[in-house]
Amino acid sequence: MRRIYLDHAATTAVSAEVLKTMKPYFRKHFGNPSEPHQWGRESKVAIEQAREKAAVFLGAKTSEILFTSGATEAINLAHKGLVEVSYKEDSDKIPHIITSSIEHKAVIETCKHLERLKLAKITYLPVDKNGLVKTNDIKKVVKPETLLVSVMYVNNEMGAIQPIKEISKLIKKINLARFNSHLPPIYFHTDATQAIQYLDCRVAELGVDLLSLSGHKFYAPKGVGLLYFKKGISLIRQQDGGEQENHLRAGTENIPYIVGLGKALELITEDRQQTLRKINNLKEKLISGVLKIPEVKLVGGTEKKAPHIVSFLVKGVEGEAMMLLLSEKGIAASSGSACTSGLLEPSHVLLAMGYRPEEAHGSLRFSLGKDNTKEEIDDVIEALPRIIEKLRKMAPKL
Amino acid sequence: MRRIYLDHAATTAVSAEVLKTMKPYFRKHFGNPSEPHQWGRESKVAIEQAREKAAVFLGAKTSEILFTSGATEAINLAHKGLVEVSYKEDSDKIPHIITSSIEHKAVIETCKHLERLKLAKITYLPVDKNGLVKTNDIKKVVKPETLLVSVMYVNNEMGAIQPIKEISKLIKKINLARFNSHLPPIYFHTDATQAIQYLDCRVAELGVDLLSLSGHKFYAPKGVGLLYFKKGISLIRQQDGGEQENHLRAGTENIPYIVGLGKALELITEDRQQTLRKINNLKEKLISGVLKIPEVKLVGGTEKKAPHIVSFLVKGVEGEAMMLLLSEKGIAASSGSACTSGLLEPSHVLLAMGYRPEEAHGSLRFSLGKDNTKEEIDDVIEALPRIIEKLRKMAPKL
Repeated sequence: MRRIYLDHAATTAVSAEVLKTMKPYFRKHFGNPSEPHQWGRESKVAIEQAREKAAVFLGAKTSEILFTSGATEAINLAHKGLVEVSYKEDSDKIPHIITSSIEHKAVIETCKHLERLKLAKITYLPVDKNGLVKTNDIKKVVKPETLLVSVMYVNNEMGAIQPIKEISKLIKKINLARFNSHLPPIYFHTDATQAIQYLDCRVAELGVDLLSLSGHKFYAPKGVGLLYFKKGISLIRQQDGGEQENHLRAGTENIPYIVGLGKALELITEDRQQTLRKINNLKEKLISGVLKIPEVKLVGGTEKKAPHIVSFLVKGVEGEAMMLLLSEKGIAASSGSACTSGLLEPSHVLLAMGYRPEEAHGSLRFSLGKDNTKEEIDDVIEALPRIIEKLRKMAPKL
Repeated sequence: MRRIYLDHAATTAVSAEVLKTMKPYFRKHFGNPSEPHQWGRESKVAIEQAREKAAVFLGAKTSEILFTSGATEAINLAHKGLVEVSYKEDSDKIPHIITSSIEHKAVIETCKHLERLKLAKITYLPVDKNGLVKTNDIKKVVKPETLLVSVMYVNNEMGAIQPIKEISKLIKKINLARFNSHLPPIYFHTDATQAIQYLDCRVAELGVDLLSLSGHKFYAPKGVGLLYFKKGISLIRQQDGGEQENHLRAGTENIPYIVGLGKALELITEDRQQTLRKINNLKEKLISGVLKIPEVKLVGGTEKKAPHIVSFLVKGVEGEAMMLLLSEKGIAASSGSACTSGLLEPSHVLLAMGYRPEEAHGSLRFSLGKDNTKEEIDDVIEALPRIIEKLRKMAPKL
């Protein structure tokens, strides 16, 4: 049976080359890197080689790279770890975080957790109709207590590329003024999970102080990620225990996955231009095909968009239903309105962009990968109109 | 070259059978379990089958099993998650935790973190000369605010088996009295990381409310573990983000490793009796051989000890040095005094047992696994005396 996978923003398969690189570390070189014997040293060397690859990819120092179990953990550590550094029991000035209203739940829920414990105050920036943060909005909400600005690089639901360089320039300007007023600097974190594969992620170019990513969005396995944190930044460890990762992340290291992450980052650099051209062509083809269906619109326009994510709103149809019927036809897509525990909640991203809940319910996301083909896109363009027609016929007339 | 691995308490290689079970989930069945399409469902089913295996192993319900990135994460979640449930901003009665002075750093450092944030008060129980907690000591330190008792099942440095069943009986008795005084119950957590392979870990037999474990101590990979938490217990999530693991642990699930963990637990049940007999014989042989060396003693006697861990104190020699020379001879052992950042700190476990720092420095741990042979033990017994003699000759006369 046909299997067309167009859900790469949700996860990717581990590439054959990455898996091959990982294999020796399951059974042959399996020592605990904390042990200085030869078994341990083999593992330690493997981790440090992967760290070097990650550092090269990001244009960072190896000491600025910290491996985690994924972007979610990295994001939790970045936000909570920074906030706890400023924790003072008897202070009524708790740190302030500025983030956007369209962040991944890893950021939003981490911020809510800090708010609940009265460890931080949070401001959520609005976005425009294309899902973009307005850099100048940051100026309006900055306070003396502001510790961190956290804005994602690429939105996972509809692909908007946020003005990271512009924001970092603004923060540098603000920090200069703060320095003169003896205020501590504001740090800038970006969740780069959806940007790694296709966009420039060199931290110096971006001007970010912290950056999180997850391996499984670019053909490394699920369960590994990393946090970049600029030299000089102090973090309070969130996973307490042994001294791994320079005392900043306890727990025996997942050597095969760390090795796999390093390899996958190396492969991105090798393949990026070629993959980009291919994916851009496929995306254009997909967009023009899908937009021929009546009452379907593209979420957030075509400007400032990541090459691999495209999201549509289909009038009068539930995204979940489209996704399930596509799945029956052997096509993997995603619905922006992720259904959990039986409740259909409209996407917070689409609501923040100004769509009404009933519009947001009809969202359908396709996300492309390096192995997709023109024929697959043709198949989707052929299958989707029938599915939509079928569901529209079934829908109760309102 | 000879490779004799006697450091199974640090980590194990992934078994061939476990790796085989994991393989299809890297490239073939790789969907994101949060997505309801067929790719996602395949992964979801695999996770739930593994959860069923873990539940069977522990005699628990599937809803009581939560997969994590390892025991360290599970332990952090158990302690912090429980404490945060009782967090009230304006209360001066902060929760009290009773733990032992010989816990793994994952417990001790987590407790210290909670203390630092003024979220909990901690009492560390002493141990006797055999490294055992005295159950009655708990009675003496219980307070109305006591929320949790956390005592490890088997100590990782010298193998002492703690009186878990006895402690749980005492806590049940205390809880009955508390119920009558309208006080909330005290929960009981055990870090069972070193017990899983060889001891009865059925939660109802043990009488524990929470239990943590890590896959890589029993031939599953490094980077996966679980927390058992009894039905009815509320926890505040520590890794915030998506709705995975019933809203208690955000982040895309590491499907291959979760599947591997389930398989490894299943294999334990199949092999336990046979492995136990073999390991016990090897351990006796090792102990009697090593104790022939002058001025070497066994840490904590032979009673109430796990079958796979044996620890010695060698007079006048650094454990680290013995370990490195053994490594040169192709033998993996461990030194109780883990050397980190160039500082040799004596083991907190040995100090708690009443050993002096200069004694503790000479600790050497061997930990056996299912594939070790008599010949390997013979080789160690032959090599070790020469290494000790060599080091004693080099040591400065005090």
